[in-house]
Amino acid sequence: MADEATAVTKFEDEDVENFLETAVEVARNAGQVVKAAFALEKRVETKSSAADLVTETDQNVEKMIIGTLREKFPDHCFIGEESVAAGQKIELTDAPTWIIDPVDGTTNFVHSFPFVAVCIGLAINKNLVAGVVYNAILDEMFTAIKGKGAYCNDAQINCSGQEDIKQSLVMTEIGSSRKVEHITAKLKNIEDILRTGVHGMRSLGSAALNMCHVARGDSDLYVEYGIHCWDMAAAAVILEEAGGYCADPKGGPLDIMSRQIICGSSVKLVETVSKLLTHIEYERD
Amino acid sequence: MADEATAVTKFEDEDVENFLETAVEVARNAGQVVKAAFALEKRVETKSSAADLVTETDQNVEKMIIGTLREKFPDHCFIGEESVAAGQKIELTDAPTWIIDPVDGTTNFVHSFPFVAVCIGLAINKNLVAGVVYNAILDEMFTAIKGKGAYCNDAQINCSGQEDIKQSLVMTEIGSSRKVEHITAKLKNIEDILRTGVHGMRSLGSAALNMCHVARGDSDLYVEYGIHCWDMAAAAVILEEAGGYCADPKGGPLDIMSRQIICGSSVKLVETVSKLLTHIEYERD
Repeated sequence: MADEATAVTKFEDEDVENFLETAVEVARNAGQVVKAAFALEKRVETKSSAADLVTETDQNVEKMIIGTLREKFPDHCFIGEESVAAGQKIELTDAPTWIIDPVDGTTNFVHSFPFVAVCIGLAINKNLVAGVVYNAILDEMFTAIKGKGAYCNDAQINCSGQEDIKQSLVMTEIGSSRKVEHITAKLKNIEDILRTGVHGMRSLGSAALNMCHVARGDSDLYVEYGIHCWDMAAAAVILEEAGGYCADPKGGPLDIMSRQIICGSSVKLVETVSKLLTHIEYERD
Repeated sequence: MADEATAVTKFEDEDVENFLETAVEVARNAGQVVKAAFALEKRVETKSSAADLVTETDQNVEKMIIGTLREKFPDHCFIGEESVAAGQKIELTDAPTWIIDPVDGTTNFVHSFPFVAVCIGLAINKNLVAGVVYNAILDEMFTAIKGKGAYCNDAQINCSGQEDIKQSLVMTEIGSSRKVEHITAKLKNIEDILRTGVHGMRSLGSAALNMCHVARGDSDLYVEYGIHCWDMAAAAVILEEAGGYCADPKGGPLDIMSRQIICGSSVKLVETVSKLLTHIEYERD
């Protein structure tokens, strides 16, 4: 790994722009496969629980994404949801590492509920530097490079800047765990957020798209426990480049391997909500 | 009222088709006004609670819809969300009565969260006979006439037919009430539904659009307490014409003045979930 770690320090802006351009093209092609399968009957299998679903499309699209990126960038590393489900170890080194969720919102995909996204994030030296989140059904392509702003279909997007929880629209999810202690804690968090007098709570069923909505400023905060690095890596770049703030709900900076995230339109809003939360333990990625 | 009651029995299929055609045109025009205001800063006032919002757009669009329909159908009656908020009494007689929500999902509208709908339902002899739900932001026009099927942008739509709660995607909302007893009961209902092992829960923040998603088969059930007749009238026709079933969560047929609804892809699914619910009392419309 030493050679790779040395190598990555050399990457210039134009390299990252090239990486993003490739990722956008790959996401668009992958999105067409997702869209073609979207309205059809799906063969569904389950993973960690009866509500944790996977389809052939998830697996095929991930192979397609990794195959194309590996061909272009043979020295890069990969973390993909379905490769990990198939037994591959998650290892984030200093090497350029693509973090991939072929279908974020698989339950939505299974039901043809139109919030599914191809997510491709890129970390270099363990820092997230680029992200692509593509909802092929609504044809919304969210992209960002660190330091260069966030975009949806080429229009720059910005968080709302909201700081007041009472004026906020908040997104969260119950997720796929049906363990009583998880559900109890998640519902308590919803209750404690509602008690602030918040405008409302929404759930689209896709972590990445929830984050992109916060990035676009049409909601103000998103919090979830139990998600994985591939659910948040790409969207975290987009959200921060839109002027938002990502953190660990227990305090401190976002740790994409920690299985949890809080992110919002302002540091103040994130800190206000973090203080309300009952924290939930999941095994790290 | 006797004359009107006699008069309405005369309406033929082509009359109702003409009513729907007019309503679609009115909804499309109203939707353009909503869309034009969507991305702008809104001046927001509150109604029954700090989370029950209204904007000038709600009020102006309702005046526009009622003005146009009254000009075309001077003998018809009207129930509109904002007219009622301004003090008008709700009265559903046997006369043709248009039931209107100019912006279903006002909180979404305020935040530019893209799930808002112009809703126009028509009751004759107190029976719902036609409905239009138009999401101008996503340009999705849902329509139905009783006995003639349901459509989205001219393509016929159908419920999923799902009967098994374990395989279902369920929609519900917390709504705008922040009363502790309302929130407690609503969260208990979510918990009791989750305990069945349901695939997931979603909240788009618009009663009518939640119902249209069930009608389109991309979710399987929707339940909410605290909504009004204008939130459900138009979408109820669409859902039933898509093969779904609407009911009172406490049992018996849907009563649009009862402030509550459960609707789903099958009688069996609706009955299964109804039995789990903690009922919540709201004052009737």
